[in-house]
Amino acid sequence: MGEMVDNKQIVLKHFISRGCPKESDMVTQVSKMSLKVPHGSHGVVVKNLYLSCDPYMRSRMTDTETGFYEPFTPGQPITGYGVAKVLDSGNPKFKKDDLVWGFTGWEEYSLITNTAGLFKIEHTDVPLSYYTGLLGMPGMTAYAGFYEVAAPKKGEYVFVSAASGAVGQLVGQFAKLIGCYVVGSAGSKEKVDLLKNKFGFDEAFNYKEEEDLAAALKRYFPNGIDIYFENVGGKMLDAVLVNMRPNGRIPVCGMISQYNLEKPEGVHNLTFVVMKKLRLEGFLVFDYYHLYPKFLELVLPFIKEGKINYLEDTAEGLESAPAALIGLFSGRNVGKQVVVVARE
Amino acid sequence: MGEMVDNKQIVLKHFISRGCPKESDMVTQVSKMSLKVPHGSHGVVVKNLYLSCDPYMRSRMTDTETGFYEPFTPGQPITGYGVAKVLDSGNPKFKKDDLVWGFTGWEEYSLITNTAGLFKIEHTDVPLSYYTGLLGMPGMTAYAGFYEVAAPKKGEYVFVSAASGAVGQLVGQFAKLIGCYVVGSAGSKEKVDLLKNKFGFDEAFNYKEEEDLAAALKRYFPNGIDIYFENVGGKMLDAVLVNMRPNGRIPVCGMISQYNLEKPEGVHNLTFVVMKKLRLEGFLVFDYYHLYPKFLELVLPFIKEGKINYLEDTAEGLESAPAALIGLFSGRNVGKQVVVVARE
Repeated sequence: MGEMVDNKQIVLKHFISRGCPKESDMVTQVSKMSLKVPHGSHGVVVKNLYLSCDPYMRSRMTDTETGFYEPFTPGQPITGYGVAKVLDSGNPKFKKDDLVWGFTGWEEYSLITNTAGLFKIEHTDVPLSYYTGLLGMPGMTAYAGFYEVAAPKKGEYVFVSAASGAVGQLVGQFAKLIGCYVVGSAGSKEKVDLLKNKFGFDEAFNYKEEEDLAAALKRYFPNGIDIYFENVGGKMLDAVLVNMRPNGRIPVCGMISQYNLEKPEGVHNLTFVVMKKLRLEGFLVFDYYHLYPKFLELVLPFIKEGKINYLEDTAEGLESAPAALIGLFSGRNVGKQVVVVARE
Repeated sequence: MGEMVDNKQIVLKHFISRGCPKESDMVTQVSKMSLKVPHGSHGVVVKNLYLSCDPYMRSRMTDTETGFYEPFTPGQPITGYGVAKVLDSGNPKFKKDDLVWGFTGWEEYSLITNTAGLFKIEHTDVPLSYYTGLLGMPGMTAYAGFYEVAAPKKGEYVFVSAASGAVGQLVGQFAKLIGCYVVGSAGSKEKVDLLKNKFGFDEAFNYKEEEDLAAALKRYFPNGIDIYFENVGGKMLDAVLVNMRPNGRIPVCGMISQYNLEKPEGVHNLTFVVMKKLRLEGFLVFDYYHLYPKFLELVLPFIKEGKINYLEDTAEGLESAPAALIGLFSGRNVGKQVVVVARE
């Protein structure tokens, strides 16, 4: 069995069918854990270093089958993306002291039996926490949604909502790198300044200060929008539909404004989908992980040359994870929300 | 100048920004017309035989640029698809007595100066009126939306709304021919019977008799829907989104339930676009006319072998055109709505 240690865990107490989750819906508990892989298992035991807070996790707090993500198990640790160090391995693909990213638990140590969702980290000359964001799932999401789903061309007009978030900040920078005009929306002056000054967006605006979102978009896109990278849904989507150009594309990455509503807002302008021949396309990053090596090849040099910036919002300690996760839904985070469990 | 004749015309009196158009918004007038092409013109003068009533014409009754269709000109004859006989031609592509289909006017005789939208009719062993429907724009729309946009596979689950209409009845038959399971919705018992007995849909239902559309779809598609051929929008789209399968496709052909509303209905279930990785794609038939020969090659044998049926709702006389057009919006027509101006 090997050494038994105390293992602090964050547990979901119960399903939350509607409304915004609260910190008190999660609880910290301590259980006992062996740091050795059980005999005959092909799994790995890891020490968790960085955990990722992502909007899609909201859907896993409900007892509904969505088809792709399993609901969390109340009473069990929350699961999600993270960066971890292998302590023991029953799998030839991983060995002790390897660094990995992928699906792990919200706890100090995890036994991961399904290693299909784990990537070995080969490049350690960048901040390890980047593998929860820029070099992990959100980075691949931005890459897949922008390059593969939207198929952008130089000179096109691109709009990104939730633009300072884990995915949005990257989409904007990808768009600039291929010569698009990019505008982002965010929910505070601080975030708007970041978009313009740190991430190189051509323009940015605070959606909370705009009474008429369609008019705001018309101001920034007098010729219309070719690509809308959709992160928020609801009113913003309605305003965008009016401003799309013919043959426009809307990769639908998420609709964070809708996840906690009693009833989702109605979107009224879908007739433009016909009139302007628009394509709205939902996508999930799982279908694109085979492109991960190609993605790294593109992005690593950009990071090293300073052509891509990435901003993280770091919460210290496993106990801070529930508040960090919930903060996503009010936009409290500035940049990618990471939780540091341990630095090594 | 040649012979001058009386030319009866249907004219739009004024733009109709909202609400359902009325017969009295159109008027019959008589003007004088030469049956010779003006000297030096590359146009053709035609005698109109069959005129097509199509839902997209509603958008042309408003003074709004939609990007593809020009608004009608109040005081001038309505324009639309039709079948006509060439009386005189200044264009080497067309000669006297040729039969053509394409864009013409709601009048007895038209001078068509832009002949780019005219197709010469090569096959006359089928009813000529079919070139307003099965073998014309609606047929190509069904073909493009189903084969090109939805990219169906044998065995998939297909749902068609407004299924007895000019486009819907064909989509259903195309789907059966490649081995899909097909259900259609329509607005009367008569139409539902047609879908099942004449067009070979596996199942059909009257949406007006269903209190809960999502539950109705669940009944007909216990395993979900792969392809939804969207003709109506609004509540039906919302009910469909709940019932779509992962990777489902929604070619958006039209949203007839929304065109006459003061404010379009809200669609609330778009978060399923992400969760189920759905693709909603608007399309317009113009982009697919290069496939017309391929389409004829597919469809003509099916017609001759009786493998495709096509139902027309025929209104007699140019004066009946306004009522026929308006009937589309209350679903008064059973099958493709055609107006006979002359039979030869």
